[in-house]
Amino acid sequence: MTRSTLSPTPRSTPRRHAERAQADRAALDAVLDAGLVCHLALVVDGAPLVLPTGYGRDGDTLYVHGSSGARSLRGSAGIEVCVAVSLLDGVVYARSVFTHSFNYRSAVVHGDAELLEDEEHKLHGLRTLVEHLAPGSWGYARTPTKRELAATSVLALDLAEASVKIRTGGPGCDELDESANDVWAGVLPVRQVWEAPEPAEFTDPTLGVPAHISRRK
Amino acid sequence: MTRSTLSPTPRSTPRRHAERAQADRAALDAVLDAGLVCHLALVVDGAPLVLPTGYGRDGDTLYVHGSSGARSLRGSAGIEVCVAVSLLDGVVYARSVFTHSFNYRSAVVHGDAELLEDEEHKLHGLRTLVEHLAPGSWGYARTPTKRELAATSVLALDLAEASVKIRTGGPGCDELDESANDVWAGVLPVRQVWEAPEPAEFTDPTLGVPAHISRRK
Repeated sequence: MTRSTLSPTPRSTPRRHAERAQADRAALDAVLDAGLVCHLALVVDGAPLVLPTGYGRDGDTLYVHGSSGARSLRGSAGIEVCVAVSLLDGVVYARSVFTHSFNYRSAVVHGDAELLEDEEHKLHGLRTLVEHLAPGSWGYARTPTKRELAATSVLALDLAEASVKIRTGGPGCDELDESANDVWAGVLPVRQVWEAPEPAEFTDPTLGVPAHISRRK
Repeated sequence: MTRSTLSPTPRSTPRRHAERAQADRAALDAVLDAGLVCHLALVVDGAPLVLPTGYGRDGDTLYVHGSSGARSLRGSAGIEVCVAVSLLDGVVYARSVFTHSFNYRSAVVHGDAELLEDEEHKLHGLRTLVEHLAPGSWGYARTPTKRELAATSVLALDLAEASVKIRTGGPGCDELDESANDVWAGVLPVRQVWEAPEPAEFTDPTLGVPAHISRRK
């Protein structure tokens, strides 16, 4: 079960372009479920560090692959993180450069992440991660050995404090530009598409591509 | 003129998957030039904050659009930041979930960013930003008024301390899985594509889409 609304705190309440903020918890889930890579930010030796990494969501918990930042996380029971997932939907061309923008969906989650030690929870987190990155792979590919599980870091973060911003639609038109009818304004949409699967050199060329890969949306 | 090599410090030297690290400065420029959105991380009240935003590069300087984080930046002459630009190129399906991965290109830049106050430098930074986000828009759309320029925050960050990681190619195959010939392994490439331009409702429908938008690569 997931919460039905976001619980904003001052730092998770957008002030700039507040009209783009979403209060609905479903909007957070939709952005997290649509993204593939997140950006995990930590404070290390007083300085900010941000790294791209994989993640997955199960209900109110965000699982984040921690190995890339492992040296920063070692020995941390609870570590303060900020995680962003951003999807670019288009470039907004306006009549003035000032009004240019992106169409996007973005989620920013704040909180203390737990570096999972419990084997069962870690396995569940890893499964959630893998099924987000590669739906259908868990149970098709070999699941982790104890040694592999030990070599993997998984962070768990409660989705209690988060903000979501979404911009859609065309450009605004400033008063200054109302008569500039010779300047084209609009949106150039951008989209991520899957291309044809490329088998590894060691994959038997007669082995068909499984549907969970060939039909991925 | 740009530097020809990266100048790694301990925090900008990847330890995990060090074989993916690039030492060449050209690799940094290539990743920065290929991305559209960066993730800007700051420390605010001792906690990490990461926000997606626009950016552009000119030589050894990265200009970052700071308005989204404006409340965090106000009054800051130099502010310690970390900026990541990540490009996802594919999902790597292996015979084991442990060996699953992404193909990606990512750059992480560390340093003290300057919140630009000098009008000429700020205008140059904004132009760099706009020409990265929307090449050809500067000089086609109306350039900023003094009031618009004052309402915009631009950060400048020297590209002196950065790391670049790139993963390409197919999955590895662990010894454990060498005989698992019934498991398909390979890469599902992913790519960002531009779709057909959508004119704003106030754009004269007989006005052609300019080539810098319709032919964008």
